[in-house]
Amino acid sequence: MTRLRIQRLAVIGVGLIGGSLARALRAAGAVDEVIGCGRGRANLERALELGVVDHWTQDPGTAVEGADMVLLAVPLGAMAATMSALREQLEPTAILTDAGSAKGSVVEDARRAFGVMPGNFVPGHPIAGTERSGVEASFEELFQNRRVILTPLPETDPAATARVADMWRCCGAHVSFMDVRHHDEILAATSHLPHMLAYGLVDSLSRMQANDEIFRYAAGGFRDFTRIASSSPEMWRDICVANRQALSLMLERFALELADLAGIIRAGEADRLLQIFQRAKAARDRYIDSLKGSTE
Amino acid sequence: MTRLRIQRLAVIGVGLIGGSLARALRAAGAVDEVIGCGRGRANLERALELGVVDHWTQDPGTAVEGADMVLLAVPLGAMAATMSALREQLEPTAILTDAGSAKGSVVEDARRAFGVMPGNFVPGHPIAGTERSGVEASFEELFQNRRVILTPLPETDPAATARVADMWRCCGAHVSFMDVRHHDEILAATSHLPHMLAYGLVDSLSRMQANDEIFRYAAGGFRDFTRIASSSPEMWRDICVANRQALSLMLERFALELADLAGIIRAGEADRLLQIFQRAKAARDRYIDSLKGSTE
Repeated sequence: MTRLRIQRLAVIGVGLIGGSLARALRAAGAVDEVIGCGRGRANLERALELGVVDHWTQDPGTAVEGADMVLLAVPLGAMAATMSALREQLEPTAILTDAGSAKGSVVEDARRAFGVMPGNFVPGHPIAGTERSGVEASFEELFQNRRVILTPLPETDPAATARVADMWRCCGAHVSFMDVRHHDEILAATSHLPHMLAYGLVDSLSRMQANDEIFRYAAGGFRDFTRIASSSPEMWRDICVANRQALSLMLERFALELADLAGIIRAGEADRLLQIFQRAKAARDRYIDSLKGSTE
Repeated sequence: MTRLRIQRLAVIGVGLIGGSLARALRAAGAVDEVIGCGRGRANLERALELGVVDHWTQDPGTAVEGADMVLLAVPLGAMAATMSALREQLEPTAILTDAGSAKGSVVEDARRAFGVMPGNFVPGHPIAGTERSGVEASFEELFQNRRVILTPLPETDPAATARVADMWRCCGAHVSFMDVRHHDEILAATSHLPHMLAYGLVDSLSRMQANDEIFRYAAGGFRDFTRIASSSPEMWRDICVANRQALSLMLERFALELADLAGIIRAGEADRLLQIFQRAKAARDRYIDSLKGSTE
């Protein structure tokens, strides 16, 4: 790995992701100066107090002036406006990347904001997070052994992609490269669909007549299963809208599969049920083993 | 609470639930002698070594001889055969209860095995468990602050119900009483449906073309969400068959709701999505608060 050196990092959106990147790069001695930018003044002041940023501004254009690396860690719904707001002041040699959970929409936003797909923009997605948010929740180890997916386009300068990859590796992450559309399909399956099931289940139960009673008798498994339904509603609204094509298709298919499963249960087909549960348990156990084994 | 004293407890099925009941009652000094019964000889020998049981036998009839309290903690699919096997030797004054996750099927099994619904049979369901099984996994605190639902029938002797309730309270549990059918509907919603979603999701992903890759990019939330898909396939086959009516109905309804949600996402209806997610998050957060607040 090349010894990474960022002179001035602009973090637009100093939350869990943006704050943790700044902390990790500082800890690695890979950045000289960090400029934070966001809407919430209190959060920015806290970022300064915590030493996560050296300066802050509420204006994206001001934030990117003189920066050689810019991370957009704003909600997906704010990407387009943020890009437009910083477009004029972005240095021609600066590298721009993002941390959005869907990539197709961000690429579309970039094309629209910049007129063309900028060669120095490297779309990215660190697969890391907790239910907490804000700079207070950030910590330098967040990306250790986590995966970051970069989805460069044919127009993307390979040197820019390499530099963004180095930045994430410097934070301890494993970097993968993927087609934009493939990324959005994979994430629809592993992240967006489960969130819809958890939100959908809790919402469905809460609308039942005896809902107080229902929750009273929920067991421990229910708490784990529904944890992701405590995630930010605004963030998930944005993700759903951004990845609506892949996600709606996945959800429609899964709804049909559940209807099939309901039929199998109604018919009391014990052997088929056993087969399904065994296959699922085997896959889940393999997945857990792979987590234990791999740091690559 | 009356001071509970069980002279001879027969535990049919010395696993997590049966073993933990024996341990808890012993710790409370509420039982003089424990007889264990099961199919697996090694597990029974381990139960003896661990002091969970005083004697063991592989024959349910022998196990219940002289017992004043009998717990059936066998899989739902084995209830009918177990009841038939112990029917002749069960003392007329003995109290019989069970720990099955569905109650309608157990009541039906009892009617069939005994010819009538026995007045000394108190159907029950301790809502407690871990993914682990066998006597090795049992521990005396398992039922502390957990709920136990008893579903006595009109034929059930109230004194038997009271004694079973005392037994569970003696283990630290909160006892509720409920109609058989209502129990099965509540559990279908809070436990059986989530298990179907977790099993269904993992199975669905594992059958996708790029399934290795899909699991590779699964994030932390996925691990929690799918934890219950590592539960025993045999146990869940039995539960599904036992509670097929309530569960298939619940699953069919939920599949329709997911199809609706897919439509909302496809149409990009941001406001409706936000509303659904906010409602779900609020319900989930209330549920978590209620867990913190209540030991009743």
